Amino acid sequence: MPDDALIDRYAELAVRSGLNLQPGQQLVLTAPLEAAPLVARVAEHAYRAGASLVTPLYNDDAVTLARFRHAPDEAFDVAAGWLYDGTAAAFRGNAARMAIAGDDPALLSGQNPDKVARANRARSRAYKPAMELITSFAINWSIVAYPTRAWARSVFPDLPEDEAVERLWGAILACTRADQPDPVAAWKAHAAELDRRATWLNERRFHSLRYRGPGTDLTLGLADDHEWLSAGGKAQNGVYCLANIPTEEVFTMPHRDRAEGTVRSTKPLSYQGTLIDGIRVRFEGGRIVEARADRGEETLQSLLSTDEGAARLGEVALVPQSSPISQSGLLFNNTLYDENAASHIAVGQAYPSTIRGGATRPAEELAERGMNRSLVHVDWMIGSGEIDVDGVHADGRHEPVMRAGEWAN
Amino acid sequence: MPDDALIDRYAELAVRSGLNLQPGQQLVLTAPLEAAPLVARVAEHAYRAGASLVTPLYNDDAVTLARFRHAPDEAFDVAAGWLYDGTAAAFRGNAARMAIAGDDPALLSGQNPDKVARANRARSRAYKPAMELITSFAINWSIVAYPTRAWARSVFPDLPEDEAVERLWGAILACTRADQPDPVAAWKAHAAELDRRATWLNERRFHSLRYRGPGTDLTLGLADDHEWLSAGGKAQNGVYCLANIPTEEVFTMPHRDRAEGTVRSTKPLSYQGTLIDGIRVRFEGGRIVEARADRGEETLQSLLSTDEGAARLGEVALVPQSSPISQSGLLFNNTLYDENAASHIAVGQAYPSTIRGGATRPAEELAERGMNRSLVHVDWMIGSGEIDVDGVHADGRHEPVMRAGEWAN
Ligand SMILES: [Zn+2]
Ligand SMILES: [Zn+2]
Ligand SMILES: [Zn+2]
Ligand SMILES: [Zn+2]
Repeated sequence: MPDDALIDRYAELAVRSGLNLQPGQQLVLTAPLEAAPLVARVAEHAYRAGASLVTPLYNDDAVTLARFRHAPDEAFDVAAGWLYDGTAAAFRGNAARMAIAGDDPALLSGQNPDKVARANRARSRAYKPAMELITSFAINWSIVAYPTRAWARSVFPDLPEDEAVERLWGAILACTRADQPDPVAAWKAHAAELDRRATWLNERRFHSLRYRGPGTDLTLGLADDHEWLSAGGKAQNGVYCLANIPTEEVFTMPHRDRAEGTVRSTKPLSYQGTLIDGIRVRFEGGRIVEARADRGEETLQSLLSTDEGAARLGEVALVPQSSPISQSGLLFNNTLYDENAASHIAVGQAYPSTIRGGATRPAEELAERGMNRSLVHVDWMIGSGEIDVDGVHADGRHEPVMRAGEWAN
Repeated sequence: MPDDALIDRYAELAVRSGLNLQPGQQLVLTAPLEAAPLVARVAEHAYRAGASLVTPLYNDDAVTLARFRHAPDEAFDVAAGWLYDGTAAAFRGNAARMAIAGDDPALLSGQNPDKVARANRARSRAYKPAMELITSFAINWSIVAYPTRAWARSVFPDLPEDEAVERLWGAILACTRADQPDPVAAWKAHAAELDRRATWLNERRFHSLRYRGPGTDLTLGLADDHEWLSAGGKAQNGVYCLANIPTEEVFTMPHRDRAEGTVRSTKPLSYQGTLIDGIRVRFEGGRIVEARADRGEETLQSLLSTDEGAARLGEVALVPQSSPISQSGLLFNNTLYDENAASHIAVGQAYPSTIRGGATRPAEELAERGMNRSLVHVDWMIGSGEIDVDGVHADGRHEPVMRAGEWAN
């Protein structure tokens, strides 16, 4: 483990820059068991910031695995709705939410894919009320990561475990700027730069984006009244938060019905304990009509068939290849990191806030503008140094947005 | 740590004899973070028994301490109602409950007693709906223990920590009979013996009990229609469970308004992180009108003033001095163990099931028979080898129940 002082600074960054936790707020915190040392530091900074109560909810991989190994078949359609409903109630009571990512990316790789799919579906369904409060930014929330041993092993399979953890800690502290003298100030400057990019894109009001590169020729329509955002923004409870640390993306809402062409993933995706790699999909009328993967294809298919919205797009995000995460040259097997290393799209649920005024508009108005709905929201990477992106205006005019994976201007 | 096989047998005992978990039931499991190795074994046996979902909720002492050290004063009237309501919903949906005890008995000893009291009161209030489902045995539940390092240190303050943990493991496995060749069979026989004692007492239908010993001269009225029970019994969901492992007690409901005289505690009590020792109280009309303690008196006073029922009795239990826990000669600083080492009484909430047919009788009928209600239920030990207990019939006749701490017949 790195210096206590560094971990403490990372925890403080998460609470102050990530959550911007307000006096009197409760904090609901999900974390892998192994992250307990970071949870303790986060709790201290949360209480120093005036939190009334910090409640950690730990994920226990051993308990999850025991289920797949020993539970009866009927078990896999059951989820802890009572717990998720409780969490939703906490959010409605203005509790902030922090998620500490870092679970074993391959935890369920060896398990029966049908059971994994059913368990995920049951969980997504039960989690929906809480997830909608999160995706609509009802409250301030943030995701950070902790380098568990299993995660570190998957990132550095050739290193001894202790060294792998050490290296992953180093990458996390560097990518989150927690190793800089004043991380809070560094994030303020970085968030301003992301805002500037979002503002430029919002002024353009592109009708669609055109992606071109090896295996990719995709025209992706943007939702009417779409708004480009960065992870920094004001939640509905009035609190400005940074939903991801690190974050390098600007993102908006694709139009549910307007994606045409083919796209190839540029990094593997870890979905609920299964690695999916080498994804190739074809869109027609916004829907994925053909999907292949070199690895984990069964899991990909079952993800896409979760519900009608799971085969349509809910997010499009642009990230330059020069991002520190991309520059680390690492494949993190973790969405928080990998989605900030490359431009990406997400199938499933869209964020209402990526439509102008969307957080408070009725559902039908959002649907009219092209918003997708689903129980899932899964990001996968389609950017690389070989991808060009054009903005396409309603009149057909093209304008360069990215060239060879970098901002064109 | 002892042999994996022994821990596994202990976990199996908890699931099979303690919970008697039924196929399709969810299991809600609370545990100290350190108990994760036992939680994993319990989860496996729960799934083997047909559990649909095991959800561990971990207590994190570091987070609790961070609150007392850093949270603002207003924080201490807040509790995780959303989580307890969720738990209550799980119980209403027929989830079983296991609690793994073993938290640091002196965790909050150094903290401001007023803040501790306020936090406890807020928690008790928020926890009430869930607690009522537990005390009325709406579902099958059981409590077992795990020897955390802090608990082991408090039991063996003079031993090196590793040795203390080893010794406490030994005591737990012996007292729970998990070190016997067939623990499940051993518990079946032991539960039958406790049932025999309860049946004898139920046939007597005593009006009250009279306790005499050093510092103690107490006449304790029993509730009308009271029923003596052992920890083994059928929950309202029809499942026979053993609520405590280990258990050595038979217990029933005292009459809320009929306790007269003085009583002295015979072992220290650990209440929510504070040790209370040398308790002397005087009852008048069922109410504690005078209370002293050599240590932790402030916490005792604040416990008794939680609400009207907190200064009246909710349970009376008889335990012989020859119980294995008593014979271990250890003071465990943990109610699960210490209450099974000696006869005890509890202030606060009574168990409806300790009145005949009580689990399904309306509240007014229970109140008429003398049932006490409170946000709290706290056991403390009044038995020792120097205590005699008589049963007193309505007509004044006395009959020996215990002599010098042993059953008189
Ligand atoms: Zn994104
Ligand atoms: Zn996303
Ligand atoms: Zn008892
Ligand atoms: Zn009790």
